[in-house]
Amino acid sequence: MPYLQRISKIQAVLRRKKLDALLVSQPCNRRYLSGYSALDHGIEESAGLLLIPAKGDARLLTDFRFKLQAEAEAAFLTVILYTKGVPALLQELLPELSIRTLAFESHYTLHSFAEKLSALGQKIGVQMVPVMECVEAFRVIKEEVEIEAMQAAVALNEKVFEEVFPTIASGRTEGEIARQLESTMYSLGAQSPSFSTIVATGPNSALPHAVPGVTKVEAGQPVMVDMGLILNGYCSDMTRTFVVGEPDSRYLAIHRLVRRAQLAAMAEIREGVEAAHVDKIARDIIAEAGYGPAFGHSLGHGVGLAVHEEPRLSSRNGKKLRAGMVVTVEPGIYIPGWGGVRLENMVVVRADGCELLNKNSTWLDL
Amino acid sequence: MPYLQRISKIQAVLRRKKLDALLVSQPCNRRYLSGYSALDHGIEESAGLLLIPAKGDARLLTDFRFKLQAEAEAAFLTVILYTKGVPALLQELLPELSIRTLAFESHYTLHSFAEKLSALGQKIGVQMVPVMECVEAFRVIKEEVEIEAMQAAVALNEKVFEEVFPTIASGRTEGEIARQLESTMYSLGAQSPSFSTIVATGPNSALPHAVPGVTKVEAGQPVMVDMGLILNGYCSDMTRTFVVGEPDSRYLAIHRLVRRAQLAAMAEIREGVEAAHVDKIARDIIAEAGYGPAFGHSLGHGVGLAVHEEPRLSSRNGKKLRAGMVVTVEPGIYIPGWGGVRLENMVVVRADGCELLNKNSTWLDL
Repeated sequence: MPYLQRISKIQAVLRRKKLDALLVSQPCNRRYLSGYSALDHGIEESAGLLLIPAKGDARLLTDFRFKLQAEAEAAFLTVILYTKGVPALLQELLPELSIRTLAFESHYTLHSFAEKLSALGQKIGVQMVPVMECVEAFRVIKEEVEIEAMQAAVALNEKVFEEVFPTIASGRTEGEIARQLESTMYSLGAQSPSFSTIVATGPNSALPHAVPGVTKVEAGQPVMVDMGLILNGYCSDMTRTFVVGEPDSRYLAIHRLVRRAQLAAMAEIREGVEAAHVDKIARDIIAEAGYGPAFGHSLGHGVGLAVHEEPRLSSRNGKKLRAGMVVTVEPGIYIPGWGGVRLENMVVVRADGCELLNKNSTWLDL
Repeated sequence: MPYLQRISKIQAVLRRKKLDALLVSQPCNRRYLSGYSALDHGIEESAGLLLIPAKGDARLLTDFRFKLQAEAEAAFLTVILYTKGVPALLQELLPELSIRTLAFESHYTLHSFAEKLSALGQKIGVQMVPVMECVEAFRVIKEEVEIEAMQAAVALNEKVFEEVFPTIASGRTEGEIARQLESTMYSLGAQSPSFSTIVATGPNSALPHAVPGVTKVEAGQPVMVDMGLILNGYCSDMTRTFVVGEPDSRYLAIHRLVRRAQLAAMAEIREGVEAAHVDKIARDIIAEAGYGPAFGHSLGHGVGLAVHEEPRLSSRNGKKLRAGMVVTVEPGIYIPGWGGVRLENMVVVRADGCELLNKNSTWLDL
């Protein structure tokens, strides 16, 4: 079980920073450290908190609704219920465990809850310390067992796409196709989609985050499918853009340009390269062809237990890539009124290059 | 269009509180005031912010990915893109609009973002003021047009359940049934589920928030279906528990007890009654029959643009119900190792009683 090892790494960080404990609220962090897989119903309705002391056993704090699941999934942890709210439980628990400095996740704690923590701290003499990315610093580098899980998620994603792709024809609506993709995910064994499946056709494909609707696929127009699934907790994320029937020369030129940018960026990815540099490689190719403003988002993002996580492949991220990171590479060109093309694969950063988790092909290759 | 009226109510509050503007981050609040329906990909990845000045026009701040959707859905608003992040945009915009005191939603702002706001405020001389439930105070009382939308969502929910119910038989898995319910939602015109559909059978039904899995329905065991959908932005939420084949006397007794608690609570709901009182009515009936600890959650919650919102029908909510509120009434009894029964309907609070949005029946009535 990797959880105890992971917890002990966090405990080492706490001791080094002279913090008595960390309160883990971010759901993927919670799962990473405990195996407890319940999802929050939004940040306002937490499915629980992990309390990791610098020394000794971690506790899982949750409520009645999740008690049995918590006990089953995180059997190595003590599960404690907050029946009168989290602050009331902490008021008892922190003194009992001699916790005088409690770190909390600033990037996944509501301002209103931080205010309650602060008031509690003043009342019982505990210093509340906001921390950022304490667990994420470990999550960002995937263990081999995690990479295997993601490889399996990507393989299932491709299988789902291949099963549905031949049925995509003129006259079918975006919504129908999106639903078919999601039901195929379930029937082939995925836990769920990793985000709401995007199918956008014609001018709708110019919206990077389009919501599938009643627009019908028309021959000759772009169809963009952005889909992901969760398998054993790990996410996939993949985009394909194609045309039913014959693509025209404009579509072909744009598709080939996006693909060229994607392959060029992939060729640059390896340990030690700046994230912003990889983004720039793809962006320059698109800009030189005159489509700079039409590529308005960053090149990619990390994937793991969360479908969007660190590192960002963005012009604003000057950090270096490290071996074991898993990122998407997804350049796109979006032209209002016409449509868009985005192509997205997932890769593992290695010491000497990158390892493609997808099959090395798209519907229309160079 | 109700949006301008709603915005002007917020503006009146701002002027009364001597605040120059409100930054709206909560997605349902954003939609309520603008019609802009994009969803956040979690609180960490916002689809935009509304900036409502105390006087003058509101702005919708978003990023490239959502530009076209924002402009189409909230055509009456100026859409502004943050290309270098939200703080950088606010640094330009706030002085330009002479905003010296900016309220932000404490209950839907991350601690880390509040810290950035605070640093920005110090830099440019703007006071950042945390506020709670400013928009929610209006949302909690539904306009008649909203109640009609919710009536339609509940009616569609019942239709979906009625279509799937006859197919629920021994040997089918929880997961299959949940997927069928969700695909039926889509095919009958829902926008999406309002939460991940729960189908739990046998001992799994003792988990109030069970995740549907490979467990198969068995004759004589409880089957709990908790499902909701979104139609025109408004949510439904409904739970039915039943048995395939013949229920035994234990099941019958527990089901009838839960139903009796539900009807008794409904009979108490009207304007002016304390929320905690309604919870107590149901809780006392269940406790008197010896099942007190087996009813570990509160009796109900508000529903609207969000599937869980104010008011809570909970022992800790001493506030009075007001006409136009819409709440669920959902007592339950959960027995580890055996299973559970929960029955959930939605009602509108009226001056002299409550109006049931569901059909007044359950599979097994008293």
